Amino acid sequence: MTNNRSTNSLFSLFNPNSIAVIGASSKQGKVGYEILKNIVEGGFKGGIYPVNPRGGEILSLETYRSVKEIKGEVDLAVIITPAETVPEIIDECGGKGVKAAVVISAGFSESGNLKLEMKLRERVENSGLRVIGPNCAGIVNTSNNLYATMEIRVGKGEIGFITQSGALGGAILAWAKDKGIGMSKFVSYGNAVDVDETDLLEYLGEDQETKTIILYIEGVKNGRRFIEVARKVSMKKPIIAMKGGVTEMGSRAVQSHTGSLAGEGRIYLAAFKQSGLILAEDVHEFFDFSKVLTHCERMRGERVLVLTNSGGPAVMATDKLTELGLSVPEPPQELKSKLDFLPKYYSKRNPVDLTAEATAETYVKVLKTLFSTEFYHAALVICVPPFFLDSVEVAKAISEVRDEVKKPLIACWMSGELVKDAIPILEGKGIPNFPTPSRAAKAIWALYERSKFLARHLKQKTFKNLKGFRP
Amino acid sequence: MTNNRSTNSLFSLFNPNSIAVIGASSKQGKVGYEILKNIVEGGFKGGIYPVNPRGGEILSLETYRSVKEIKGEVDLAVIITPAETVPEIIDECGGKGVKAAVVISAGFSESGNLKLEMKLRERVENSGLRVIGPNCAGIVNTSNNLYATMEIRVGKGEIGFITQSGALGGAILAWAKDKGIGMSKFVSYGNAVDVDETDLLEYLGEDQETKTIILYIEGVKNGRRFIEVARKVSMKKPIIAMKGGVTEMGSRAVQSHTGSLAGEGRIYLAAFKQSGLILAEDVHEFFDFSKVLTHCERMRGERVLVLTNSGGPAVMATDKLTELGLSVPEPPQELKSKLDFLPKYYSKRNPVDLTAEATAETYVKVLKTLFSTEFYHAALVICVPPFFLDSVEVAKAISEVRDEVKKPLIACWMSGELVKDAIPILEGKGIPNFPTPSRAAKAIWALYERSKFLARHLKQKTFKNLKGFRP
Repeated sequence: MTNNRSTNSLFSLFNPNSIAVIGASSKQGKVGYEILKNIVEGGFKGGIYPVNPRGGEILSLETYRSVKEIKGEVDLAVIITPAETVPEIIDECGGKGVKAAVVISAGFSESGNLKLEMKLRERVENSGLRVIGPNCAGIVNTSNNLYATMEIRVGKGEIGFITQSGALGGAILAWAKDKGIGMSKFVSYGNAVDVDETDLLEYLGEDQETKTIILYIEGVKNGRRFIEVARKVSMKKPIIAMKGGVTEMGSRAVQSHTGSLAGEGRIYLAAFKQSGLILAEDVHEFFDFSKVLTHCERMRGERVLVLTNSGGPAVMATDKLTELGLSVPEPPQELKSKLDFLPKYYSKRNPVDLTAEATAETYVKVLKTLFSTEFYHAALVICVPPFFLDSVEVAKAISEVRDEVKKPLIACWMSGELVKDAIPILEGKGIPNFPTPSRAAKAIWALYERSKFLARHLKQKTFKNLKGFRP
Repeated sequence: MTNNRSTNSLFSLFNPNSIAVIGASSKQGKVGYEILKNIVEGGFKGGIYPVNPRGGEILSLETYRSVKEIKGEVDLAVIITPAETVPEIIDECGGKGVKAAVVISAGFSESGNLKLEMKLRERVENSGLRVIGPNCAGIVNTSNNLYATMEIRVGKGEIGFITQSGALGGAILAWAKDKGIGMSKFVSYGNAVDVDETDLLEYLGEDQETKTIILYIEGVKNGRRFIEVARKVSMKKPIIAMKGGVTEMGSRAVQSHTGSLAGEGRIYLAAFKQSGLILAEDVHEFFDFSKVLTHCERMRGERVLVLTNSGGPAVMATDKLTELGLSVPEPPQELKSKLDFLPKYYSKRNPVDLTAEATAETYVKVLKTLFSTEFYHAALVICVPPFFLDSVEVAKAISEVRDEVKKPLIACWMSGELVKDAIPILEGKGIPNFPTPSRAAKAIWALYERSKFLARHLKQKTFKNLKGFRP
């Protein structure tokens, strides 16, 4: 059974020395052309062997009539031939010693052709290959410029992305590229005749280039194994998951889509949460949460300081934080009394409001006073610059505090052209910025959820700083 | 009392023939300079009279030592002088026959100076002027290029924006400008010694240039009057409101911010909803909802058709729609049988999934078949273009259906560079596009909420098309 194969054998899938593109086409607009083009233009450094019975040249590369004809070794086969030919091609690949394959071809169970999928599954099991797909959008490993996909070429980054929906995957890659966000790996696993979501989770859990994992999932094959692996991986790095098919109608839609049983949507969510998965509700949350979880320390409790120069956004943040189970408490009296240098009419109750008179200096002085003690577990600093306040200055000043106080510091600099130069300064210093107070609050929630999970599971032994944690 | 003044008298506030800028400064970076500059550079066509005791010229305009010295008539005074001078200046303005004033100056109740605010309130009542502020960020009327504010100059549009928080207002203007969204009016009303949120709501309700109203509010002065006016205005045009201070901690933050009592946050929300206000939870929803409510017909019921070429996003949309109380039902059998021209393995259960094989033609054919009958009340069309599908072609094709079927048609073309040319085509045809299925679903919810409100309040007499509505 596939579960017995070691995940180490997925290494060849993502790190091949050479690739055969079986079903390569010379015709622009054909999948077999576009994938070959992506591999070539993506800058893959190993051998690339287009396979097409007609022979000739494609994209200046010599074409082979079959895998067998290729003289060198082949690690990875990307298969784009008609569905019914795929089982035989897998056999051939096995004979040639190919280690892994990505089957892009559609026309299996998703089109009602269960018999062909069974046949493919058998051949895969006999072949010794590790296989992704069929009916998938391919894989990407940005660290070695491997773009074995027809989707947009995303840049390098620290996010590993696993998706059950190929098209949604492509859309999210385009979204990320549009926002300048990079990825380490991308895998669309399609019908999963061999490698499934859990194998991939385990592999990305070990992958040095992947700091956070994002996952779009509708159903899992083996719930128990998934939960076990998810929990193990979550202890090492964050997994942010979006679950399709949470409601009854959504579950019905899932059944039509991937044939997964998602009927127990709410049960799934509870199990996911227990395994440490952070649940995203929309696409931007994948990236909001990745950012906060990559840059920030864990929270040792639920108390958030909100420091602002504008009341409205601070009110919005406070509402959202407390709705999400966090707390925005007033400073204890002895701490509050240290703010006596501020004018009387400033609110010192948290949110602490420096009003339109705020300067970079007052931001820093108040932040240091309140945040360097143990009382607050995270700080959200909001800056809505009036024209006479340089939001870059405030960003630089805050960054110095970031170096001194090793606790999560989150920013909400609003908006557009008023703050566009300040955001890179903040983020360059490990202070993630979010475009609205609500999004900042939700990101803090993600950090809090993960902190609670780690506190529960890693115990004092390995995580002694969490002694003070009160879940 | 101010409530007895007719809202017609707000006309001079937004449509002055001439403006005195009292406290105009020649020093760049001063509020008194930046506001004058905004008025001049904004392109205001009437008389502009800077007032400064020192005299001289500012921005090539002759300066007057006091309002009295100005020879021509003055309709609007913008006041930026130190707080303690404002009551006397209001007196002077009254003497000169000035009709309205915007008091930018801070240093009143918000800084604990209740006495000065009382004094100002008295003078305002005696002066006959309509006054916005004090402690506000000013007003904008894009139709006559009036930018009496220190905030960013937003472009022309159909959204009227009323905000209790000046800084949040400025941030939202910057957000809108960044996204290319324009506005008709902007008002930051500050401490509201005279003109309050309800007066402004009433005024924008009558304003021809304003098609939707967006409102950031923490507390209202006179709840009963607000509710009455809000309900009346909601019958004419949508009001989208964001309420600061919904939670207990949020309410405490509101008290520190504007001194409003927002303790009854949840009660406010219920009352707002009853008055037809559509509640936004984050900044982008102001604009998402404005877009859908401006472009789409009302919904006559809760049934939404989801048509897609990708399963994942359709599942997400279905989850969100049903969570929000809408429905994504299968087509009745006789309708479903009309889809027999589609391959067997396509899901026809709603979401209807055309798979990666989708073409502009199949989109149109299926949409016409299902949407031209009475069964569905709105349609969400999702398109995640594989490289071989031209998303512009699909957008054009769908637009033709928009002309034929007079029901809400909403789009979710995903993402980034894959669809950037298609979106203007959709939106140009009155098909609002949203970047994710969840945001599209939430926008449909806003439309549904408003449709229900109108169905309840406008009755069959004026709204006979809603006969079939089932709230």
